[in-house]
Order: sequence, then C-alpha cells, then structure tokens
Amino acid sequence: MYDLIIIGAGPAGITATIYAARKKLNFLVIAKNIGGQAALSADVENYTGYQYITGLELAKKFEEHMKEFKMEVKEGEEVVGVEKIDGTIKVKTDRGAYESKTLIIATGARSRTLDVPGEKEFKNRGVTYCATCDAPLFANMDVAVIGGGNSALDATLQLIKIANKIYLININPSFRGDDVMIEKVEKSDKVVTLYNTKTLEILGDKMVTGIRLEKEGQQKILDVRGVFIEIGYVANSDLVANLVELNRRGEVVVDEHCKTNVPGIFAAGDVSNVPYKQIIVAAGEGAKAALSAYEYLSRLRWPA
Amino acid sequence: MYDLIIIGAGPAGITATIYAARKKLNFLVIAKNIGGQAALSADVENYTGYQYITGLELAKKFEEHMKEFKMEVKEGEEVVGVEKIDGTIKVKTDRGAYESKTLIIATGARSRTLDVPGEKEFKNRGVTYCATCDAPLFANMDVAVIGGGNSALDATLQLIKIANKIYLININPSFRGDDVMIEKVEKSDKVVTLYNTKTLEILGDKMVTGIRLEKEGQQKILDVRGVFIEIGYVANSDLVANLVELNRRGEVVVDEHCKTNVPGIFAAGDVSNVPYKQIIVAAGEGAKAALSAYEYLSRLRWPA
Repeated sequence: MYDLIIIGAGPAGITATIYAARKKLNFLVIAKNIGGQAALSADVENYTGYQYITGLELAKKFEEHMKEFKMEVKEGEEVVGVEKIDGTIKVKTDRGAYESKTLIIATGARSRTLDVPGEKEFKNRGVTYCATCDAPLFANMDVAVIGGGNSALDATLQLIKIANKIYLININPSFRGDDVMIEKVEKSDKVVTLYNTKTLEILGDKMVTGIRLEKEGQQKILDVRGVFIEIGYVANSDLVANLVELNRRGEVVVDEHCKTNVPGIFAAGDVSNVPYKQIIVAAGEGAKAALSAYEYLSRLRWPA
Repeated sequence: MYDLIIIGAGPAGITATIYAARKKLNFLVIAKNIGGQAALSADVENYTGYQYITGLELAKKFEEHMKEFKMEVKEGEEVVGVEKIDGTIKVKTDRGAYESKTLIIATGARSRTLDVPGEKEFKNRGVTYCATCDAPLFANMDVAVIGGGNSALDATLQLIKIANKIYLININPSFRGDDVMIEKVEKSDKVVTLYNTKTLEILGDKMVTGIRLEKEGQQKILDVRGVFIEIGYVANSDLVANLVELNRRGEVVVDEHCKTNVPGIFAAGDVSNVPYKQIIVAAGEGAKAALSAYEYLSRLRWPA
C-alpha cells in the first residue's frame, strides 16, 4: 500500500514528485512518458528563471530534478482503470495493479487537432497550438489563426501586436467569442477574417509556407509562415470520468487545495479546471496537490 | 494611464511581469526590492527545473528573466496608498503617483518573528522559518521547533524523518493543532516537547549552537544546530486592507483566477489566500494573475 500514487509526469506530476519525495512519502509514479506537453513546446520563454529554453531541454531538466530523488517510477506503463474501494485507491495498468491511500491525477491535456494533412508534419515548424507560448516567434510574419471562439480571438489579438498580417479562419458564419474581442479583431486592419471557411491542408517544405482553404466550394491557398490552431483542449480525464466530478469541458474539478470531490484524490495541472494551460501554472499546482495529499495523510488515523 | 500596475517583485510579481510583457501590456512595476522572500532562502531544492540553487541565485535568475523584457520598474519606491476612483486605480508612492486600469497585488508575506536576541544574526545560519524548504539540511542533527500550532507540528513531523532529536518548544500548556498530528508527534521517541516554555535567546558563533529557554522561572540551555520558528506568517496586505476583502489571517481573498472582490484588482502569491507559501506556487499564481488582468483588459470597452 503506497501513501500516494501520481499518474502523469508532466510539469504538474513532476513537481508533485519533488514535493512528495521531500516529504519522504512512500509513493509511486505511473507515466506514459516523462515531460508531458512541455517537451513538445518549441521555445519556452515564460518559465520564470529560464529566459530562453526549448521545451525539450526544460522537460529534461524537470526529469533530472525528479530523478535526483529516490522514487519508484513505472515509465511507459499505461493506466487502464482507477477505483476507490473501502478507502483504498486501486490503480490498474497494462502491466500491474497498485494500491494507495491517496492519488494525484496529473494526466494533462492535449490540444484538439484539426486532423488535416500537414498538421502533424509541421508541428513546431510553424504549426502551433499555443499563442501565449509562440506568438512572439512570428514577429512581422504573415500567419493564420484557425478557430471560432475566445481562444482563436485571443490568439489573434496577441498576434496583432506582433505579426504582419493575420488570417483568421472560422469554419462557422460567426464567432462564439466575446463581443468586445470580436470588435477589436474587426477593428484591426492587420486581420483578414474568413467565415464559412474550412482548412483542408497545411503546406510547407522544412517549415510552414501556406495553408489550403475551401470556402463555398472554392479552394484557395494563402501564404503564411505560422498556423495557430486554436480549437480547444481535451483534458486527459477519460480514466477518471466515473470516479471524480468533471466540468462540462471534461476537466477534473478541484478546489484551491487541488482536492477533487473524492477524499484522498487530488488533481493538478492541465487535466484540472485550473485556468490557463501554462507550464509554470501546472508546476505550482503540482506542488499544491502534493502538499495537500501530505496534509490529508497526516490527518488519517493510520499509524505514522 | 497604465494598463496594469504590479506591486511587488518576488516570484509572483516577477512572473506576472513576464506574462504582462509577452502580452505587450503597457505596465509599471513598483517594488521595494526584486526577488522578495525567495532571495532570503538558504537553499532551494524544490523549484522545478533547478535541482539545487541558493535563494539568492534563483532570485537573480528571476530578475534577469524579468529584465530581458523592456518594462518600467520603480525599484526602491514604496507604495503608500492605493485607491480605486471612478474605475481608475490610483497608486501613490513615496515619490510619485500613478494611474492604471488594473492592479496586481504581489506584495508577499513575512514570517512572524520571535524577536529574541540571536534570531536576526543566525537567520539562514541555523535559524529558519520554513521546514518544507530547509528540513532536509538538518539530517541527523538536533534541532528545535518553536510554535504551538499546525505549522510547528508539521515541521516536527517532517523533521522526525530527517533530524536526530527534535525539541518542540511551545509557549502554551497545550497545542492548537490537529489531534492526529499531536498524537503522531507524541508517539515519536525523537521528539521532546516542552510546554509553558519561552524562548529567550538563540545562541551561536558562526552557526547556531543552542537555544536559551525559560520554564516556570528557570532558565535552561539546549544544544541544537537548527531552530525552526513556526509561529505563523503575516501577509503584507496593510496597504490594501481598506480596498479589497481580506480573510481573518489578513490575506487578500482571491478566486481561481486571482481576482479579488474589486473588478480589475488581482492578487498573487503569499499575500493572497493561496495555500502553501512556496516559490513555485507563487510563480504559478503570478502567471494566472497577469493572464486574468489581460483578459479583463481585453473585455474593457476601451479601444485596443
């Protein structure tokens, strides 16, 4: 019986391991990979303390930090089921079964993808899913933003200050976002908005060079260097959907102590309803979740 | 008129500046010093990405990161008043007056001090205010913990796993903390609890060597290498006490978006009611506060 099982080893999960290790908890980490989405970011310029670092380098530093402490890690092992029976949390993986007093869900989220040709090939080579992270890389360039909600509008507003020209590609006839943001976007002469427009393909050689669109049956190619795909996130919460409360976006609902509605089960980072999918935010939440789990264990009427 | 004023430049304030700069907000930072309490920590081993760094070095890296971006910083300037009049936030300092659409309060907290001789002299030379940060530095040593509440009990429980012997010095005849924690502390043969005991002085030469106590009129000296002062925190919220809602501990009450009860005013880090006074947590909250302020500005009916 472990004190704690942590599922996931992105910024939230890794930070949770560091805090758990320093509290000398008897814990287990189960993670498909170490580094999470952080490792997929091209350039990270907003992780306080590192002025500039690639996502891969930062993820490596996280991993080294984690492995500085002795801990049991099941890397590459996939969780297939989680349940809580008589106060015991049972985690089943593709290779084993483990029991614990507490659990931290830190399984992250993934960007919703367009699923068009070129999208995978040019990821981090012009295709990005995070304007906050990557907008500054496209200074004075022509870019496309794909989406119809607040995150697409927000990406566009960020890019107005940075890029040369922004094509805002909306598959619908209008925006779902806030009026004020829509007005601001419409007011800018840097933005060309295309409605009822479907993205068919992302073009490029080494880097993105353009985007192929379809509007009312007619195809068109635009020359752009960046493609911001802002069609939402999907929390990796399927595993615990029947165990803890999710919000309508599928995120695990937590309070300010990272507690879910089930005692002893915590969640941290992008899988939770914490606002803003940012590395530094997820790391902070991982610390909170581990310290909360530690407090919960301290209060349990089990022997020290 | 600024878009944003940030008061304070500890981990929360600095991270807020990085996010504000990347959003190209027109903002001002006002801070007595740069680095905050982080700079005062002896050794930091739980800031994800840095396996080991001194507080001073980490604070320096934060400052360098901040100064990578162009921003207006009033360093050494002290805020003497903050008010919101007709939607405009007015910040008065000892040298000037500034106006802004939004405000982030990131003024941090300070540990409550004992105010006994030796306390200042041996700070970070055996005297510490953070068990989570510093307990691992006292492996197999004799230490004293001073306090009568959960944080003193928690510090003691952490030290049971690490130190040789822990003297728990409580000025009161009993503990205010949780029963389970008290039981665990009482059960450990590593802990010697002294009730009704006042700490008179912290002794040492280069480092702490002992502590002078008084119990029922009699004085006593204990040989210890570490003194954990766990008598609480004081949020630096005096300036805004008449402006925003504080909780009974004097912390600024914020929601999960770092919003206070006053529109346009946000708080982040140790000054707020966020649990756990940790650098990585404060940094995460600083990012949230800046992104929230940015969203608030995007929704204002002012021109872009």
